[in-house]
Amino acid sequence: MGFTKKDYEFLGEIGVGPDNLGGYVDGKWKATGPVVSSVNPSNNQEIARVTEASIQDYEEGMKACNEAAKKWMSIPAPKRGEIVRQIGDALRAKLEFLGRLVSLEMGKILPEGIGEVQEIIDMCDYAVGLSRQLNGSIIPSERPDHMMFEMWNPLGIVGVITAFNFPCAVLGWNACIALVAGNCVVWKGAPTTPLITIAVTKLVAEVFEKNNLPGAIFTSFCGGAEIGQAISKDTRIALVSFTGSSKVGSIVQKTVSERFGKCLLELSGNNAIVVMDDADIDLAARSILFAAVGTAGQRCTTCRRLYLHESIYQKVLDQLIGVYKQVKVGDPLEKGTLVGPVHTRASRDNFEKGISSIKSQGGKILVGGSVIESDGNFVQPTIVEISPDASIVKEELFGPVLYVMKFKTLDEAIEMNNSVPQGLSSSIFTRKPEIIFKWIGPHGSDCGIVNVNIPTNGAEIGGAFGGEKATGGGREAGSDSWKQYMRRSTCTINYGSELPLAQGINFG
Amino acid sequence: MGFTKKDYEFLGEIGVGPDNLGGYVDGKWKATGPVVSSVNPSNNQEIARVTEASIQDYEEGMKACNEAAKKWMSIPAPKRGEIVRQIGDALRAKLEFLGRLVSLEMGKILPEGIGEVQEIIDMCDYAVGLSRQLNGSIIPSERPDHMMFEMWNPLGIVGVITAFNFPCAVLGWNACIALVAGNCVVWKGAPTTPLITIAVTKLVAEVFEKNNLPGAIFTSFCGGAEIGQAISKDTRIALVSFTGSSKVGSIVQKTVSERFGKCLLELSGNNAIVVMDDADIDLAARSILFAAVGTAGQRCTTCRRLYLHESIYQKVLDQLIGVYKQVKVGDPLEKGTLVGPVHTRASRDNFEKGISSIKSQGGKILVGGSVIESDGNFVQPTIVEISPDASIVKEELFGPVLYVMKFKTLDEAIEMNNSVPQGLSSSIFTRKPEIIFKWIGPHGSDCGIVNVNIPTNGAEIGGAFGGEKATGGGREAGSDSWKQYMRRSTCTINYGSELPLAQGINFG
Amino acid sequence: MGFTKKDYEFLGEIGVGPDNLGGYVDGKWKATGPVVSSVNPSNNQEIARVTEASIQDYEEGMKACNEAAKKWMSIPAPKRGEIVRQIGDALRAKLEFLGRLVSLEMGKILPEGIGEVQEIIDMCDYAVGLSRQLNGSIIPSERPDHMMFEMWNPLGIVGVITAFNFPCAVLGWNACIALVAGNCVVWKGAPTTPLITIAVTKLVAEVFEKNNLPGAIFTSFCGGAEIGQAISKDTRIALVSFTGSSKVGSIVQKTVSERFGKCLLELSGNNAIVVMDDADIDLAARSILFAAVGTAGQRCTTCRRLYLHESIYQKVLDQLIGVYKQVKVGDPLEKGTLVGPVHTRASRDNFEKGISSIKSQGGKILVGGSVIESDGNFVQPTIVEISPDASIVKEELFGPVLYVMKFKTLDEAIEMNNSVPQGLSSSIFTRKPEIIFKWIGPHGSDCGIVNVNIPTNGAEIGGAFGGEKATGGGREAGSDSWKQYMRRSTCTINYGSELPLAQGINFG
Amino acid sequence: MGFTKKDYEFLGEIGVGPDNLGGYVDGKWKATGPVVSSVNPSNNQEIARVTEASIQDYEEGMKACNEAAKKWMSIPAPKRGEIVRQIGDALRAKLEFLGRLVSLEMGKILPEGIGEVQEIIDMCDYAVGLSRQLNGSIIPSERPDHMMFEMWNPLGIVGVITAFNFPCAVLGWNACIALVAGNCVVWKGAPTTPLITIAVTKLVAEVFEKNNLPGAIFTSFCGGAEIGQAISKDTRIALVSFTGSSKVGSIVQKTVSERFGKCLLELSGNNAIVVMDDADIDLAARSILFAAVGTAGQRCTTCRRLYLHESIYQKVLDQLIGVYKQVKVGDPLEKGTLVGPVHTRASRDNFEKGISSIKSQGGKILVGGSVIESDGNFVQPTIVEISPDASIVKEELFGPVLYVMKFKTLDEAIEMNNSVPQGLSSSIFTRKPEIIFKWIGPHGSDCGIVNVNIPTNGAEIGGAFGGEKATGGGREAGSDSWKQYMRRSTCTINYGSELPLAQGINFG
Repeated sequence: MGFTKKDYEFLGEIGVGPDNLGGYVDGKWKATGPVVSSVNPSNNQEIARVTEASIQDYEEGMKACNEAAKKWMSIPAPKRGEIVRQIGDALRAKLEFLGRLVSLEMGKILPEGIGEVQEIIDMCDYAVGLSRQLNGSIIPSERPDHMMFEMWNPLGIVGVITAFNFPCAVLGWNACIALVAGNCVVWKGAPTTPLITIAVTKLVAEVFEKNNLPGAIFTSFCGGAEIGQAISKDTRIALVSFTGSSKVGSIVQKTVSERFGKCLLELSGNNAIVVMDDADIDLAARSILFAAVGTAGQRCTTCRRLYLHESIYQKVLDQLIGVYKQVKVGDPLEKGTLVGPVHTRASRDNFEKGISSIKSQGGKILVGGSVIESDGNFVQPTIVEISPDASIVKEELFGPVLYVMKFKTLDEAIEMNNSVPQGLSSSIFTRKPEIIFKWIGPHGSDCGIVNVNIPTNGAEIGGAFGGEKATGGGREAGSDSWKQYMRRSTCTINYGSELPLAQGINFG
Repeated sequence: MGFTKKDYEFLGEIGVGPDNLGGYVDGKWKATGPVVSSVNPSNNQEIARVTEASIQDYEEGMKACNEAAKKWMSIPAPKRGEIVRQIGDALRAKLEFLGRLVSLEMGKILPEGIGEVQEIIDMCDYAVGLSRQLNGSIIPSERPDHMMFEMWNPLGIVGVITAFNFPCAVLGWNACIALVAGNCVVWKGAPTTPLITIAVTKLVAEVFEKNNLPGAIFTSFCGGAEIGQAISKDTRIALVSFTGSSKVGSIVQKTVSERFGKCLLELSGNNAIVVMDDADIDLAARSILFAAVGTAGQRCTTCRRLYLHESIYQKVLDQLIGVYKQVKVGDPLEKGTLVGPVHTRASRDNFEKGISSIKSQGGKILVGGSVIESDGNFVQPTIVEISPDASIVKEELFGPVLYVMKFKTLDEAIEMNNSVPQGLSSSIFTRKPEIIFKWIGPHGSDCGIVNVNIPTNGAEIGGAFGGEKATGGGREAGSDSWKQYMRRSTCTINYGSELPLAQGINFG
Repeated sequence: MGFTKKDYEFLGEIGVGPDNLGGYVDGKWKATGPVVSSVNPSNNQEIARVTEASIQDYEEGMKACNEAAKKWMSIPAPKRGEIVRQIGDALRAKLEFLGRLVSLEMGKILPEGIGEVQEIIDMCDYAVGLSRQLNGSIIPSERPDHMMFEMWNPLGIVGVITAFNFPCAVLGWNACIALVAGNCVVWKGAPTTPLITIAVTKLVAEVFEKNNLPGAIFTSFCGGAEIGQAISKDTRIALVSFTGSSKVGSIVQKTVSERFGKCLLELSGNNAIVVMDDADIDLAARSILFAAVGTAGQRCTTCRRLYLHESIYQKVLDQLIGVYKQVKVGDPLEKGTLVGPVHTRASRDNFEKGISSIKSQGGKILVGGSVIESDGNFVQPTIVEISPDASIVKEELFGPVLYVMKFKTLDEAIEMNNSVPQGLSSSIFTRKPEIIFKWIGPHGSDCGIVNVNIPTNGAEIGGAFGGEKATGGGREAGSDSWKQYMRRSTCTINYGSELPLAQGINFG
Repeated sequence: MGFTKKDYEFLGEIGVGPDNLGGYVDGKWKATGPVVSSVNPSNNQEIARVTEASIQDYEEGMKACNEAAKKWMSIPAPKRGEIVRQIGDALRAKLEFLGRLVSLEMGKILPEGIGEVQEIIDMCDYAVGLSRQLNGSIIPSERPDHMMFEMWNPLGIVGVITAFNFPCAVLGWNACIALVAGNCVVWKGAPTTPLITIAVTKLVAEVFEKNNLPGAIFTSFCGGAEIGQAISKDTRIALVSFTGSSKVGSIVQKTVSERFGKCLLELSGNNAIVVMDDADIDLAARSILFAAVGTAGQRCTTCRRLYLHESIYQKVLDQLIGVYKQVKVGDPLEKGTLVGPVHTRASRDNFEKGISSIKSQGGKILVGGSVIESDGNFVQPTIVEISPDASIVKEELFGPVLYVMKFKTLDEAIEMNNSVPQGLSSSIFTRKPEIIFKWIGPHGSDCGIVNVNIPTNGAEIGGAFGGEKATGGGREAGSDSWKQYMRRSTCTINYGSELPLAQGINFG
């Protein structure tokens, strides 16, 4: 029996059918939990059905995964890199289909859907090189006939809990590095994007299979909070990488810390753009638009706060309002659409609640501000003029709502940028070196991502991605993020026959 | 009025008198809390009196410190390095006196007391070089006319809470790096070693004063849990470095995490030595002795578990028992003493309770096992034959008690080594490369410190110090530990006039 | 018109015909020099004909290359990485054919031929990751409002002159890194392996073409000394990477240095294996065989000197002689062959001359020692007992000749290992850590490659490949070898309005 | 018998008398060469006499040095760092006296003399930290049971040949790093600054003596070309670090290369400053002055070429001419002097010859242009308007002569900057990020030092110092310059019992 719509038939190309098992357990597809529907956010109709994994499936999967971990960590890193290279090629072959599924199930526009899959492919390519560079150090010892090593060994198992807004790229950031580093991966995708979880897992699984490696090296579950909690508590999982809200992240951290596990947190963002009086205003306006309405305002790096220098305040605002009025909201798979639906009906309700709070806190809607009546979850891209003191400005309202505020001096702008609990991304528009270097320096933005003349979003994989403060402090993708996926040992080897002590101590 | 004992008069050379103020607040000595006695663990008599800091003193100190942070982070790192160099020289000039004070107040033998101070001096020398090497990265961007930087900026304020067993070295590990990294330091020493806190702070303070820098850059408090909690909760303190038990560390972590602060934890150790059948037994025996009875078994890296290959079990044990019987326990300042008192009467009581538990769990005392009746807190270095399944073997009993166990194969020894909640240090004695490399590899010891043919203790500052699992995961001293004292920003700068997007996305 | 032999028809799959143009000039195949034959070393019959590039072709190619350099260095490094990824995939698709051609034209056995091509593919994969990691540094400045950068920029054009023994792998080591680093590559392959030069160039060229990039980015010439000299003298070529003999390398270096260009030299090796008395003798014997007779002794890393501890001297020797007698010499494409022909008739003559010198210097042929009469260039794998003082032992005789010598102590063995002018590779067989760490330490082997329990040959690409002393000091492939393909600038940027001077100097 | 002038008596404080032995040979002061005078460039009168080292002294010194090398490289690097720390302290204690001697004997003004000595002290502090960070790497091997190391071992002996213009700082750059890296140092100072050579050597020597280490670790000679050639040819000296002209450097390189030794060359500079139309002109003018007349134009980083944007050409020029007229030329030890004498009478003659060539090539003297008649070697700071095509503009005229030229576009300015054979330093004055990043990027300045808004001179030790093209390509001081003072080995250790081959090759 086929899909309800012809449009969905492409899903067959990437292993998704009308009915799917949502657990990849010990190298086999299996799921004994409840059956859920994957829903198209553009019309709230079912795309396909998925049987979620039960806690029994989880336990079975973890047992196999734990066993597979011993084998996987014994394989030399460059050989693990070769597997990840093949995963990259498998994804590359299906780039268009996967990107289309991301758009369909998550709701972001097609170029963003494809871009998201491209990001995993980029990560695979990157990780292949990394597999020959997970370098330890040989540190000069102060003792004769001694060697001091800093070794990096695999952790064992890495749990990855991802969110709906990047239903597969975040898996890519984590899994590519975790795998070359010698870890098995346990993935729980978002409950509302199970088809993406399944499609990506299938491609990965085929690679392991083709190489006669245990499928359990990559174990994957569709499911909700119960599976998430199981991962948090599971002492077999050395590192839990969690992407989601600061609120839930804080609970995950507490649970994992209680068992002295490691956490890698990518939590809420509340990101600002600062526009200085000398800025290239066209460049700024285009960047703000992409940053504020891209992915319908549901990126963790979405720009939610806009600080405009008083001298160009009105000019930038007028330009933005003009552009906002022309933004095409609609089916994310349709050409020309810039803003798709928000992900769920609950997201739409949340947007409405947010707008109501904004108004009650004195915010003035300059453009947008309403939901769009339809079967889908469409809302209007919105600009709000509001006082920096309004409490809602400190929160992450997960939709295309932009708060605009005015400032007089750079110091004031930086202070406002830093005044929220979150610390993910930030950007300034200016052409003055003294401002650029102050902005990225000790007295500048306190975020993990500190941009100049580009949007708050759109990170490259070569850098480390993540944020400070309530954003959780984790770093993914490039730079030395790989160290989080390994355990470090400081090893001192005495190959002589004497026993000199450090700090010149004489004992006995 | 002078000291009660002539022996204590040297304390005047390092700024300690019979009565002392236990708070260095905004560059002035001030304390309005309760008066406590510093007690000599060899006889439980008062050395001197200290007025502890009150929570009001804390608040006053932190306000000044927070203000000083803005200034200190503006000073170029190499200039901060020059200050740390001067601190090193100030300590070097008083090495003997400070070492003597450590022995007197903490109870470790003089060579260890001096070694501990030497470690801070080494850290200062190291940090001076580091002040020109806190390097960020320039990462190739995938976009034309873009630069990608990874910047490292100061955190602001680093809180350091230290324990009695290393009353000043741990401060040194943290403060030297934290200072060159551009942070102010807030130090709370152990409540039972206030004189050391004061003496070290005085030397540091003089350097800041001589350089016309705010004393508040280094703020220091004698005090107890109340000050510790204040530090944990204080949102002005970006990083809390805590050394102590896993139990208290877990609470600190929870408190700090709730406010999304950063933690650096150095918690309990429960460290094993494995002796293989091919080991150099003399080398092993000397190492075990130093590791098990040094600092009266109160190092976090103290060897508490000894795994002997069955073929050399009796031989090593006999040799150890022979040596243990000759170990001189006594006044740590007296020449020839190898084991001083445990730190407090409570520590002595704890030892007694531990011995009693050991017996009830089937442990057999091979040597030692009793407290030594005296005014001081002396206990006998103790060897216990016990089953690896005894629950007490999984705990950290903070005294000179060594559990001896037998094994047949390397795999078994590694499994036993890894079977406790803690993961600080470990050591193997062997001459076989295949064993050495297995031991330090993915299937080897799961500790942060993984030694070969040396004791579990006695780390060099060039490596990263710290442990996994319940030891807390922090790393101090060398390698890239400095990164924990800084915040990382990934900065992308567009200096062109176009707006290309990452992953080749086309928006709008 | 087709090939003279049906066996050669596979060459059509990789762009080689019976008659070929040996210059890839400004994106077009062109050559106006003399026509030469490519000869099969197994029978000295022609495989195909190649028109070599003339000096006019060279000049035309270089002009275009110089122009292309401006464009190529403007493309972001990760985009250059994507091109190299495609090159890797293009080679992967033709791995078997290319490997077969290497065997056919160079004479090494098929597994080695395929292994050589695999090495380029590995280099491509590695370089892709590297393209996001060509990191500069941000170094703390001692001056306020100053930034200090270490930038790495492309050199422009890199010349690569390769030798017959690795007719394409060495190109891969250099070109993959040079290309991602932003350089154009000018390749002159060995005069006797033009078909490989052409086949590899064709695959590379297609990738540039497909991506609408100038073919001149990769410019390639079949030719001899004239082209080589032109490269050495050409001020447009910032770096000349030369592989060949110490004698010729010395001339190249002189020529390049006179114009203050950069050289990367991979010159003669004269590599020793030391077998200690505790060695695993089977492992050693297998390693020595591969190291000494692999590629018919024509690797730069071929083992030419064997130092055996006196206690195991005869045992190892007997085992080796036994094995040597069974080694199958013959057609390198035939299954079971271990040793193919030496590359040319001149190589065969050289072998004969070498044997004659050996005899005149007192060397005793233990096995082999003769050429094998046939149409091809086959010689017998040879073991020679000789005095370490014989002058021929200090030279690189490029064929399967192994000198065996005896030693008593480790120090003696190390001294003998280090006693030759060359410093490429070396290996010791032992199981003692104190020997291993001495061997790789300051008093150990003085070579660039220092192995333990593996042959002298068979390097992995993740490490830096190259040697000291008369081997020329260059390093290729992994580690930080990429730095040689870039120019380093130390940049200090003052973004403030003051002019503080370094070292606190006060001027005026 | 004392000094001829009372002013010279301070020399006694740093071990210099009226008559001195100019060789530190095997830990003893000894010299059997000719007696030469050290002359004060301000009046050409003798300061003191020095017996130079003969070639016999050299040989005796090198024999001892070679012996000492074995010992020094056995001492753990951090212990070597402690020695260098003591050297730094010894210099710090005599900073004022040494700085005064530099001014007296070399001729630079006192703040520069003291700054030069401070630079060695900074290098010592830096090298101490480095002594625990001379890290090798542990690289993931593609083969199971294999470890791949990159080890860094000492070279043995490093020869340092320094020039008169930085008679001791350059020694500091080299020796501090060379020593912690485990090398002995052989120093030949400039023939005209023997007293500085002696004074610095005495302080260094005392440290070795105090630590009971062979003085031969630091071997030092006063002498001329004969000693220099001996160093170049000496196969015991693995690395020759040479500072001087491109012409002599080229000969040194040739000599050293012929024996396959290593060279580190710091040769001629011909450094330009570019002033853009948006520049801060006051900042630029002050920088140009310091860069062009500091050290009487005898720094390798002296600004010799000035490119002014046509729109601000006259304005900057007028300002410069005004300032030049007020520059005080005179006794370098006198307060207020900005420009001391050039170093020798020959330097003065050379200046005169240069001026004459300038005129004959159409150069127009805008200010200065004459020698100042006196007993000393004083010349006038000079500005010349000249065509960029004049051949003298491509040469390094070692005196305070500045060529001024006009440009229209940034591209033109960069092209002119890059149009000379030398490639040491360069600087641009601008406030535009797009210019800054172009300037430091692939299409920008081709120098080793690429500054923005600071002079061409005045490098910090944390960065790598040195230049491209005819400047020789060497890098000293910070960054990874230390690698040049060590030899790198790629070590692969098989600790298993199998023999897997790289690239998956199957042999036999």
